[in-house]
Amino acid sequence: MGKEDVGITVSKKDDFSEWYTQVVLKAKLADYAPVKGLIVLRPDGYSIWESLRGTFDKKFSRNGIRNGFLPILIPESLLGKEQKHFAGFNPEVFWVTHSGTNEIGDRLALRPTSETLAYTMYAKWIQSWRDLPLKINFWNTALRAEIKATKPFLRTSEFLWQEGHTVHSTQEEAEKEVMKILDIYKNTVEEELAIPVTTGKKSEKEKFVGAVYTTTMESIMPDGKALQMGTSHFLGQNFSKPFEVKFADKDNVEHFAWQTSWGVSWRLIGAMIMAHGDDKGLVLPPKVAPMQVVIVPIYRNDEGKETVLPKVEEIKKELESKDIRVHVDEREGLSPGYKFNDWELKGVPLRIEIGPKDIEKNSIVVAKRYNLEKISLSCSEIEKIPTILDEIQVEMLKKAREDAKSNTLEISDYSDFKSKIEKGGFFNSPWCGKLECEEKIKEETGAEIRVIPFGSENTNQKCIYCQEQSIAVPIFARGY
Amino acid sequence: MGKEDVGITVSKKDDFSEWYTQVVLKAKLADYAPVKGLIVLRPDGYSIWESLRGTFDKKFSRNGIRNGFLPILIPESLLGKEQKHFAGFNPEVFWVTHSGTNEIGDRLALRPTSETLAYTMYAKWIQSWRDLPLKINFWNTALRAEIKATKPFLRTSEFLWQEGHTVHSTQEEAEKEVMKILDIYKNTVEEELAIPVTTGKKSEKEKFVGAVYTTTMESIMPDGKALQMGTSHFLGQNFSKPFEVKFADKDNVEHFAWQTSWGVSWRLIGAMIMAHGDDKGLVLPPKVAPMQVVIVPIYRNDEGKETVLPKVEEIKKELESKDIRVHVDEREGLSPGYKFNDWELKGVPLRIEIGPKDIEKNSIVVAKRYNLEKISLSCSEIEKIPTILDEIQVEMLKKAREDAKSNTLEISDYSDFKSKIEKGGFFNSPWCGKLECEEKIKEETGAEIRVIPFGSENTNQKCIYCQEQSIAVPIFARGY
Repeated sequence: MGKEDVGITVSKKDDFSEWYTQVVLKAKLADYAPVKGLIVLRPDGYSIWESLRGTFDKKFSRNGIRNGFLPILIPESLLGKEQKHFAGFNPEVFWVTHSGTNEIGDRLALRPTSETLAYTMYAKWIQSWRDLPLKINFWNTALRAEIKATKPFLRTSEFLWQEGHTVHSTQEEAEKEVMKILDIYKNTVEEELAIPVTTGKKSEKEKFVGAVYTTTMESIMPDGKALQMGTSHFLGQNFSKPFEVKFADKDNVEHFAWQTSWGVSWRLIGAMIMAHGDDKGLVLPPKVAPMQVVIVPIYRNDEGKETVLPKVEEIKKELESKDIRVHVDEREGLSPGYKFNDWELKGVPLRIEIGPKDIEKNSIVVAKRYNLEKISLSCSEIEKIPTILDEIQVEMLKKAREDAKSNTLEISDYSDFKSKIEKGGFFNSPWCGKLECEEKIKEETGAEIRVIPFGSENTNQKCIYCQEQSIAVPIFARGY
Repeated sequence: MGKEDVGITVSKKDDFSEWYTQVVLKAKLADYAPVKGLIVLRPDGYSIWESLRGTFDKKFSRNGIRNGFLPILIPESLLGKEQKHFAGFNPEVFWVTHSGTNEIGDRLALRPTSETLAYTMYAKWIQSWRDLPLKINFWNTALRAEIKATKPFLRTSEFLWQEGHTVHSTQEEAEKEVMKILDIYKNTVEEELAIPVTTGKKSEKEKFVGAVYTTTMESIMPDGKALQMGTSHFLGQNFSKPFEVKFADKDNVEHFAWQTSWGVSWRLIGAMIMAHGDDKGLVLPPKVAPMQVVIVPIYRNDEGKETVLPKVEEIKKELESKDIRVHVDEREGLSPGYKFNDWELKGVPLRIEIGPKDIEKNSIVVAKRYNLEKISLSCSEIEKIPTILDEIQVEMLKKAREDAKSNTLEISDYSDFKSKIEKGGFFNSPWCGKLECEEKIKEETGAEIRVIPFGSENTNQKCIYCQEQSIAVPIFARGY
């Protein structure tokens, strides 16, 4: 057996960072590419992305959004057209300077994000109100050079994501779109990945460069750090003016359009690993698991094999007929114990064990991965498996909600804030709205405003830093 | 109305190249990006790619192939590891030399193809026979700088494709895989895109750099030029040796593995446009059409509208219940004639027209895009629409086969060859197997060996160039 066959050697609690890396590598989700900052996805990792893509595509499509393709190269002159936006990405841009042995005049950036390119095209495609709304999504990768150590799914110089870009004739319609998308993001992450999120706005300091405002969904991870799970931006006319995205309205008067952009990345997979994994390895929510059920036949000799395998085949077929993704582990020369560990490491939601004794009793043993519970089912109860998988999905979200709740504190005293920040967590703390306080808190504690939750605006408290009237109770936390 | 609303202004016969470009742009499949050589896909264009991807994914999956992800950046040192392979791509590679303001030591290539990167990873992942076969496919883009004028889908510096890379323990198994893939390619292109292909081997001169041999599928386009539609390569141990893709067999002896790689690109969409389009614009095969049926309600006043629209809605629902992709053109202020032209330009396979008179007669008018035939159906015959779409799909392939046949000639006399090559076509001409003759023919006529069809090997003829004993009857043709 190679090195990869050894289980996770550290506990999630003791060394979260090392635990995470081991789970990613040993569950064979991803691996490091030969260039620093870049990773490769193996089929079990990419399959989760494909599952998410499928769910988002269905929801986007119902909302009138279609997919398109943009090239990865953006000329420097174009990228710089919206100055603030460009400045935000400048230090992380990869530059193409040569093709073959020829030097390229206007250097080409590898897409850090596609606003400038998409809106150059949109300006050509949009002439009248008939062309609006224009709503296109792009599944691709973005490239932003990372200096810090590579962390698969969380910190990589190239990442899989989707970027959506919509154009509207009115501000109201654009702002509604921003919220519709954030809602799609939230319910997908909660329902598919079983991770609870808090939605709200970013502060002025933390918003997307070029946006009027940024809405976000944030999650708290088991190590107490915050993770940005997705953002949906209201761009106003900040891009439509420099890029001349204009339309003639029904009255034939020309107007600048209103725009949105929004994205989620494979970081969601990183969040899923962190939120649900345990010391035995990965724990996959059934909805996104490439394999939902693994059947391990147990026998010692040919006689046992002859009784067990036909039953295994029968159960496999029954589950497949119910659209369950099922696999039979028929590998020879490996013990059941080895196989159990292997599938636990890989996070398969349900394991079915069948041996000659089970056949005699006309029953099977079903082991749930997320809580390691084992139950016995009679063979006539196989039809319950889809329901059991649904229940696991619900239970995992419930458990993750409890974890998040226990990691969320209401803190209105700054010394309390400072003493507890080291342990991490989401801190709900009143804030006056001033950049100065936000910056001071960041400087002194490393915590930043992750999100100003919708509905947290209030006037009855005092800013945790300056004691002046608060305008909201944002969530402060340290990030990755 | 903008410029795009004007129909195709040249005929396919008179100016094929200009006709092609107009169809691509005016049917809104794609548009030119601001960088020479690059294009953007609009939703109607990308949707065809998504449809093909879906079909291939199902077939790949049934064949035990799963998808993965590879980063786009490959270090120069790695790309050069298999020297011949590298030399083949060197002049067209885009080089990243800077990230932000920092110069990068080992320059990074934008993936022209991923053999070198994939096999670096495979070498880490494969230890024993248990890890084989390893079959992973990657949907991504490849970048190869084009110097000639940009031609959407056919000649671009970045193109969407899939690249599959498999590893096997025996030569026999790898060679079988090469053929299985070629078979998947052939039946998908014929069944989905209604384009006939000829399969066989490439000559030594035309094979993929680094392959032992290349199998290919080639099609003849209406202008008499040949288009390579997809290739499946047997790599032998050409890469497994330099990249050390090794496995311990059951006897614990280490062996170099046997490999294959294979790909198709969005060029298939270009072929579809060329093969089926006509002077009115695009003609889409029903299986890949984003919209299969468009319903155009016809009325002059509110009274007409009140009778027509409910019927339209009823038909739409009935078609949707049969999984037909259907759209109702309810745009106000545009004449039916304008709408008919618009949907013909966009290639929608079936148009249904319903006006008050049709309602009276309890019938509808159905116009087929591919042959411009109009038929009348009684409303009770709506259920025939899926069958009509299937028939169109079959008819389109049949017609394309006839076109290809009429463009294919048996030529064994070289002066005949030279006099006819200007008109284009597939020339079946005997060849001795020598590079010299192949090169001379290319030099003197511009025609190259596109494919040596399976089964064309024979010994009873004389090489069209040198008159020596022939070893096969390849297809010679000019390409794009």
